[in-house]
Amino acid sequence: MPAKSTAGSAQADNITMKAGGYYSLATTGAKDVIDGAWPLFERALKAMDLAGGRDDGSPFTMTDMGCADGGTSIDAVGRVLAWVRERAPLRPLQMVYTDQIRNDYNTLFRIGFGQGPIESYHGRIPGLHILASATSFYEQILPAGSLDLGFSATAMHWLSAKPCDISNHVHSTGAEGDELAAFQAQGRRDWERILLHRAAELKPNGHLVLLNFGRDEEGRYLGNTGGRHMFDIMNRLWRDSLASGAITEAEYRAMTLPQYYNSVAEFTAPLNDPDSPVHRAGLRLSHVETRVVRCPYALAFEAHGDAARFAREYIPTIRSWNESIYKGALSSKRGAAERDAIIEDYYGRYETLVRDDPEGHGMDYVHCYLVIRKEG
Amino acid sequence: MPAKSTAGSAQADNITMKAGGYYSLATTGAKDVIDGAWPLFERALKAMDLAGGRDDGSPFTMTDMGCADGGTSIDAVGRVLAWVRERAPLRPLQMVYTDQIRNDYNTLFRIGFGQGPIESYHGRIPGLHILASATSFYEQILPAGSLDLGFSATAMHWLSAKPCDISNHVHSTGAEGDELAAFQAQGRRDWERILLHRAAELKPNGHLVLLNFGRDEEGRYLGNTGGRHMFDIMNRLWRDSLASGAITEAEYRAMTLPQYYNSVAEFTAPLNDPDSPVHRAGLRLSHVETRVVRCPYALAFEAHGDAARFAREYIPTIRSWNESIYKGALSSKRGAAERDAIIEDYYGRYETLVRDDPEGHGMDYVHCYLVIRKEG
Repeated sequence: MPAKSTAGSAQADNITMKAGGYYSLATTGAKDVIDGAWPLFERALKAMDLAGGRDDGSPFTMTDMGCADGGTSIDAVGRVLAWVRERAPLRPLQMVYTDQIRNDYNTLFRIGFGQGPIESYHGRIPGLHILASATSFYEQILPAGSLDLGFSATAMHWLSAKPCDISNHVHSTGAEGDELAAFQAQGRRDWERILLHRAAELKPNGHLVLLNFGRDEEGRYLGNTGGRHMFDIMNRLWRDSLASGAITEAEYRAMTLPQYYNSVAEFTAPLNDPDSPVHRAGLRLSHVETRVVRCPYALAFEAHGDAARFAREYIPTIRSWNESIYKGALSSKRGAAERDAIIEDYYGRYETLVRDDPEGHGMDYVHCYLVIRKEG
Repeated sequence: MPAKSTAGSAQADNITMKAGGYYSLATTGAKDVIDGAWPLFERALKAMDLAGGRDDGSPFTMTDMGCADGGTSIDAVGRVLAWVRERAPLRPLQMVYTDQIRNDYNTLFRIGFGQGPIESYHGRIPGLHILASATSFYEQILPAGSLDLGFSATAMHWLSAKPCDISNHVHSTGAEGDELAAFQAQGRRDWERILLHRAAELKPNGHLVLLNFGRDEEGRYLGNTGGRHMFDIMNRLWRDSLASGAITEAEYRAMTLPQYYNSVAEFTAPLNDPDSPVHRAGLRLSHVETRVVRCPYALAFEAHGDAARFAREYIPTIRSWNESIYKGALSSKRGAAERDAIIEDYYGRYETLVRDDPEGHGMDYVHCYLVIRKEG
């Protein structure tokens, strides 16, 4: 799914990934994205020269920013930590999972320690210390100069605040005019803010591996890669809720996802511009590429051909990251049961739509994969 | 209440403090114990000479081991961190809350960040990074040589494992013969294990401030300070459950609290004996004293004289730390509702006992307050 975390400030209160391990179980595609990033991790690790005299007993600290329940990154994090352990046997390893304060840390720790439904690296890697932080990536999470490898996947498209409601759509990819400009400006400010805090945290020659939702060179983005347009479908179904009288005009408008998908140019600009505060803080672009990772549910449908099964499996991956936003858009004057009924009806219609006419649906992931180093 | 944490290994699965903030709200006495320890914190902080050239930008790291929901220590931790911030303005502060894996970390973070029912220091102290660890204090929580001030209150009496069931009592203070010896030996091994891991974590001249349940020089301990004997009452009521047929003999025996209360001599022996591994690892005793902190509910009863109110307020403070052990002693063949009924009946009879004959009841806290430094 497209949203491992919010990590926002103003918006964070009503945005949460589904708890209790639901998130990882419903989001195998997000795990595919991370598992496929090993070449980027390896590039960053080799550039840090851990094998060349750096086994000095100082801690090697890694973060997973916007970790949700930790399940989607567990294999990649384990592979990175094992790689470091092999080459620097004397360095303590600190793995710091971070997310916003309403994340489910109880499940995170159980998954991290291998007590959840997913196998963990914990216990296979000696000298490892697992920690958690509830500090948003819009703030400084760790002490200055203490981070070796900062990682984040499918999280930093959540803005720190929603700049405005979008009058005709649920997502900034459908925004126009001043509303689009407001989201672009917010995205630029937020990306710079994220990078400046990371610049402070990183040790000299520390690295970032960031897998962020974005728009690729062909204009593709999450759920819009040639088939149906996922956000347009969401918008149409939500409009239908308005047309049927299930929700009010205010509730329609309030359902604006606080997300922005940067283009490759927007991601790289502050890293390449010598005058930007990010560049002046020492961050440099080491590598950038975009990738499309196929929706695992659409891919499975191509094999099994069972439309009802596709619909039944596909809708939960969407719910895992946007259900809380829909709920938050509904008036607090409604009772909990009434709000639940509106939400169930909405996703129920989406499931019916997919079941009755399944071709072209799917939530292909479009990420910008970045490796960034701190000069030093 | 007498049990901020378990942090055990084998036993940890069925021992938890009550979640959702219940713990702190029901345990104002535990907060009194910690708030009263300021002179010991001050002693440790002054010995670390933070004002004398140590403001070098390196992080100052504090732990609260067995933190539960973080509420009982929040004022003391805030006072310590503010003290350090004032004297070392350039040092990043890392506050690491630690407990066992089944602790309620979601509530912990909300309390730490001031989003719970209790006012927090967060936001008043710049350059502060709050973290959590789910690593037991029977393991090494932090990288070697990274800890400045290790703190723990009312937690380390929970053993890493129950050495045996006690045939005639619910608590080691009522054990005899071989059973008592088994608990003594476990207590000795566990205390040494706790200290050795802390010796590894501490920086040279780092300090520990540990407020542990124990037996004082007059033989007093929790709930046994001259009035009624709390653990004997618990044992008698649990025997009554057996006599009435509510529980089986096996369930009576399985209700053995995995706790041991060290005497002052037992606490200080490994710190003073030059041949002990703890002493060889560099830990030295800076200060030891015992204190009795009056049960706040018994104290309030002296003022208000309302026996029903006393009983109603007193039993929850006991439940907050031992309810999970009673439940764990019941056969898993019983349904959840049946187990709940047995537990409710047990505490109900305790409440009736106190209401009908309130004199002498109370859970006075008896702690051994230790300040320990690492040589270097």
